[in-house]
Amino acid sequence: MNKPTGALSGIFTPNVVPLDKSGRINEDGLAKYVDWLIRSGVHGLYPNGSTGEFTRFTAAERQRIVKVVCEAADGRVPVLAGAAEANARETLLACEAYAGYGARAVAIISPIFYKLSQDSIFAYFEEIAKYSVIDVTVYNIPMLASSIEVETVQRLAELEKVIGIKDSSGDVAMMARLISRIRPQRPEFTFMTGWDAVLVPMLAVGADGGTNACSGVVPELTRKIFDRFRAGDMDGAMADQYGLTELFHTMLHAVDFPDGFRAGVELRGHPIGGSRHPHLASQMLEIDRLKERLAAMINAFDCVEELATSRADSA
Amino acid sequence: MNKPTGALSGIFTPNVVPLDKSGRINEDGLAKYVDWLIRSGVHGLYPNGSTGEFTRFTAAERQRIVKVVCEAADGRVPVLAGAAEANARETLLACEAYAGYGARAVAIISPIFYKLSQDSIFAYFEEIAKYSVIDVTVYNIPMLASSIEVETVQRLAELEKVIGIKDSSGDVAMMARLISRIRPQRPEFTFMTGWDAVLVPMLAVGADGGTNACSGVVPELTRKIFDRFRAGDMDGAMADQYGLTELFHTMLHAVDFPDGFRAGVELRGHPIGGSRHPHLASQMLEIDRLKERLAAMINAFDCVEELATSRADSA
Amino acid sequence: MNKPTGALSGIFTPNVVPLDKSGRINEDGLAKYVDWLIRSGVHGLYPNGSTGEFTRFTAAERQRIVKVVCEAADGRVPVLAGAAEANARETLLACEAYAGYGARAVAIISPIFYKLSQDSIFAYFEEIAKYSVIDVTVYNIPMLASSIEVETVQRLAELEKVIGIKDSSGDVAMMARLISRIRPQRPEFTFMTGWDAVLVPMLAVGADGGTNACSGVVPELTRKIFDRFRAGDMDGAMADQYGLTELFHTMLHAVDFPDGFRAGVELRGHPIGGSRHPHLASQMLEIDRLKERLAAMINAFDCVEELATSRADSA
Amino acid sequence: MNKPTGALSGIFTPNVVPLDKSGRINEDGLAKYVDWLIRSGVHGLYPNGSTGEFTRFTAAERQRIVKVVCEAADGRVPVLAGAAEANARETLLACEAYAGYGARAVAIISPIFYKLSQDSIFAYFEEIAKYSVIDVTVYNIPMLASSIEVETVQRLAELEKVIGIKDSSGDVAMMARLISRIRPQRPEFTFMTGWDAVLVPMLAVGADGGTNACSGVVPELTRKIFDRFRAGDMDGAMADQYGLTELFHTMLHAVDFPDGFRAGVELRGHPIGGSRHPHLASQMLEIDRLKERLAAMINAFDCVEELATSRADSA
Repeated sequence: MNKPTGALSGIFTPNVVPLDKSGRINEDGLAKYVDWLIRSGVHGLYPNGSTGEFTRFTAAERQRIVKVVCEAADGRVPVLAGAAEANARETLLACEAYAGYGARAVAIISPIFYKLSQDSIFAYFEEIAKYSVIDVTVYNIPMLASSIEVETVQRLAELEKVIGIKDSSGDVAMMARLISRIRPQRPEFTFMTGWDAVLVPMLAVGADGGTNACSGVVPELTRKIFDRFRAGDMDGAMADQYGLTELFHTMLHAVDFPDGFRAGVELRGHPIGGSRHPHLASQMLEIDRLKERLAAMINAFDCVEELATSRADSA
Repeated sequence: MNKPTGALSGIFTPNVVPLDKSGRINEDGLAKYVDWLIRSGVHGLYPNGSTGEFTRFTAAERQRIVKVVCEAADGRVPVLAGAAEANARETLLACEAYAGYGARAVAIISPIFYKLSQDSIFAYFEEIAKYSVIDVTVYNIPMLASSIEVETVQRLAELEKVIGIKDSSGDVAMMARLISRIRPQRPEFTFMTGWDAVLVPMLAVGADGGTNACSGVVPELTRKIFDRFRAGDMDGAMADQYGLTELFHTMLHAVDFPDGFRAGVELRGHPIGGSRHPHLASQMLEIDRLKERLAAMINAFDCVEELATSRADSA
Repeated sequence: MNKPTGALSGIFTPNVVPLDKSGRINEDGLAKYVDWLIRSGVHGLYPNGSTGEFTRFTAAERQRIVKVVCEAADGRVPVLAGAAEANARETLLACEAYAGYGARAVAIISPIFYKLSQDSIFAYFEEIAKYSVIDVTVYNIPMLASSIEVETVQRLAELEKVIGIKDSSGDVAMMARLISRIRPQRPEFTFMTGWDAVLVPMLAVGADGGTNACSGVVPELTRKIFDRFRAGDMDGAMADQYGLTELFHTMLHAVDFPDGFRAGVELRGHPIGGSRHPHLASQMLEIDRLKERLAAMINAFDCVEELATSRADSA
Repeated sequence: MNKPTGALSGIFTPNVVPLDKSGRINEDGLAKYVDWLIRSGVHGLYPNGSTGEFTRFTAAERQRIVKVVCEAADGRVPVLAGAAEANARETLLACEAYAGYGARAVAIISPIFYKLSQDSIFAYFEEIAKYSVIDVTVYNIPMLASSIEVETVQRLAELEKVIGIKDSSGDVAMMARLISRIRPQRPEFTFMTGWDAVLVPMLAVGADGGTNACSGVVPELTRKIFDRFRAGDMDGAMADQYGLTELFHTMLHAVDFPDGFRAGVELRGHPIGGSRHPHLASQMLEIDRLKERLAAMINAFDCVEELATSRADSA
């Protein structure tokens, strides 16, 4: 397997995980989905993200997911693997495994559940950076895990093994501050946004790309926005950003996250199966209604092939 | 092993887990600590709570912790075992194991990390209640996991397998509303508070007891408060509640939770070892300073034997 | 006019302000309402509170409201007058006026709109305490104005002119901490709760009474709860607290605060007129539906005379 | 006096108000400050904003402030006057006065203190839009007053008298959603951002300009950023945005808002006097230290003339 190197940039997909009827990982479906994403223009994969419901799988399953994604990517694009486990020791074991599978780097969230001080967050990442056999990106998602502040990211950027930040706060000012403080010292440090609603503004303030859940549903659109921005066509990029923002907003707030994104992926022809989290019948109806709205929104994008009627119907 | 039955009441300890030098569970130390707690007056044990850092252990370790606690309790007091795992299926497997170890019931938190709707929370607990082989208590801790609202607890109280709620919100009004709505229909339903700062007010509005982290440090005090309240001595109970509130507040906000409680347990003569979460040197100094303050606070309680100087010194 | 002296205790009503058809203060209606409240058992009045919508009146109107309330009370019960104005200077002018009207003390909120540091809050109250001609109680309502922390109240309790705290946080643990820290130094310092949902638990931890919006609707009930608690009948007090908690919760969350309380007052036979804040037609319908629910809840209290059908109809 | 017309765009200064030794408005100082701002390149003035501490003045003083600013501007640039008063009626009286002074439009915040529903917010602005004699812009500042959601702004944009939104949330995605929904129907509707930290990203998603507190301190810089952006020089605009973001962040979080901005204005040679809100001695020292940091930051901007040493010293 070829192992991509170099700084990360472009649009990475935090992929959902298709399940079979008995709730197990549909490995074949996952591999096909990854292949479609790459052929549709994404620049990388990001398994075990929050969109990928990493907390709902066992440690062994998380490893299996990364292995399948790495094999399916087969060196065509880099894989940034979510490696958060119960503690630093377990996380380091995952890092080792993911390096072996050919991942380019890992993304690690601040430890979930507890509200940690900045000192504790720094101590945790420092420990991991010290022993990890693979490059580490720091994953900030303050809505769901302890917020990692600008000064903490700055301190972490002094560690060689830490090569970037993936920020899902949607805070454009914070991104600007991170870039203006870290880039002069670490020109190759990677800044990725996980907040699709502001992809273009984030690129405008200097981000290298994004890990965008929408790219798992409309990879053609996120690629087009990225390419237009890089070509200096701000107006063109923004024209599509408006639609992306509404699509993101709709999928994000539908039923419970990430139900909206799973519904969107299914509309594109990839059976994703039931959820690891049980749903009420009323919620299943809500997902059905959502699919109709999503189908209309997706069909409005010129760059996305019209959804097969049968597909939208069966969804 | 004797298996206690009946409704839960009194003070349960959400026990911390002693670790050895290499970071492994100190099973012998844990058993001795549990024995001391029971001899010091706690009415039950609550392993795998947030004070017990359940998220920092592996699934296998969590099972081991419950096994050690059940064996050490040996039927003298009931064990309420934290059973939250990655998803409903894994949680049900833990329930089965804990029933086998002799636990009286399990306590289950709303799934961590994601912000779930009330429908999703209900669907999750309904699924677990349907298949669990052991009684279930619902664990509400809105600071750290999705809040479970009054109406949702009410719906869950219609399920036979759900026998109680453990609420760590500290919201006395919510407790009063839960009790006035559920008790008429389910007189044996258990209402436990996890917020030591308001133990007496919670008992005053009708709670059956508490899972109180302070009881792991000063079990004599929490027992005395409970006994006084039950004997109708409100003024006496409150006199000690004031001190308990300050001690709780101090341990809760020290360094990072649950560092303060671990420091308190160590002061009582139970070596708890390092933490599963790495600490900076500055944080270790903070813990040392904290121990001095805690020793003074603990020594101020008449019902607690004076800390051995050597102990406080070595701590 | 007689001027009551001594420490404050018991149930004070944060009265709503009746308006006439053109939106002006209905002074005659206000005086009659105050008289009814006193005859129904409240221990004091609290004009210009948040229930009294003080921010929706002009500075001149706020003075008028206090004057009318003081005259109607006529020394039978003490008046605690909300005196918050645009800045310390204006607030001091209001204090002077209210002293002249015969108010027993003023209640002052931390300055609204800005999020102030504890130092700024202290500086503000210190300035007022230095020059005020009337006793000052500090009003903490963290939902709507900058939170006043335990340590700040403690510092303020060192100022002679500051004679008490009115806390609407509903945080029972905070009340316990305030009492255990301040009462030993200032035995006559007054602790009042503004959170009806936990009136009994607040009294249980040592509060002197409350400024309770529900007392403006069911003064008989709040008085009965207070009397029972004082007589040592905790169970009797709690039996009514459950109902009070639900009534408070219902009125608090109805339409927009304080619409629910205004509707409740009207049900008791006191025309309150429209609101200073415009309402949509859909909101007016919501208020009508609310009145039906409130009427049923109020009629369920034994100590409250049944609502005249015609009254509930016309309401 | 000339009355400017047309859609609003560019950088408006939410001006601070200089006070004299006795705490009264320094009208002469205010007029000179306004004149300096206009000569330094701002496109408009915005008196009675949150930076202008409108809540700390009396209703009469707020009118005086607008009058002085309008006279000093003398038609050279438009004045957008903050007109929020105690209720809709008082607000409408202010609107009338400000129209008479020559203001181009008013900016109105959602009523402060209470947490209002979207229906109540809409009802309030609808009432004002119905009777106002001057164009109205809606002012969203969710940190300090009830948040105005996208759907509510959309509904308000259907009212002819509502001509724009001034958003101080800093939420770039929300701005994008507002623009993509409202601009097609109301091409002349004005979108202004009050969050200096993301001025360029806001312009990038289509905003017309900003009411930026930093423009009261470094008007040359905010003008330069705006001009560069309009000239298509994104890189040049961003180069200065990084510095603006740090300056904004520093002034925003210094002591208590708006102390940082008042200190900055003073550094530029405009004596602003003490604050309407009392300060502790320790806070005054903090402001002194802040001025040193601010002076260094300001001097680092090429487009800003170096601060006179004596000036920075005496500040």
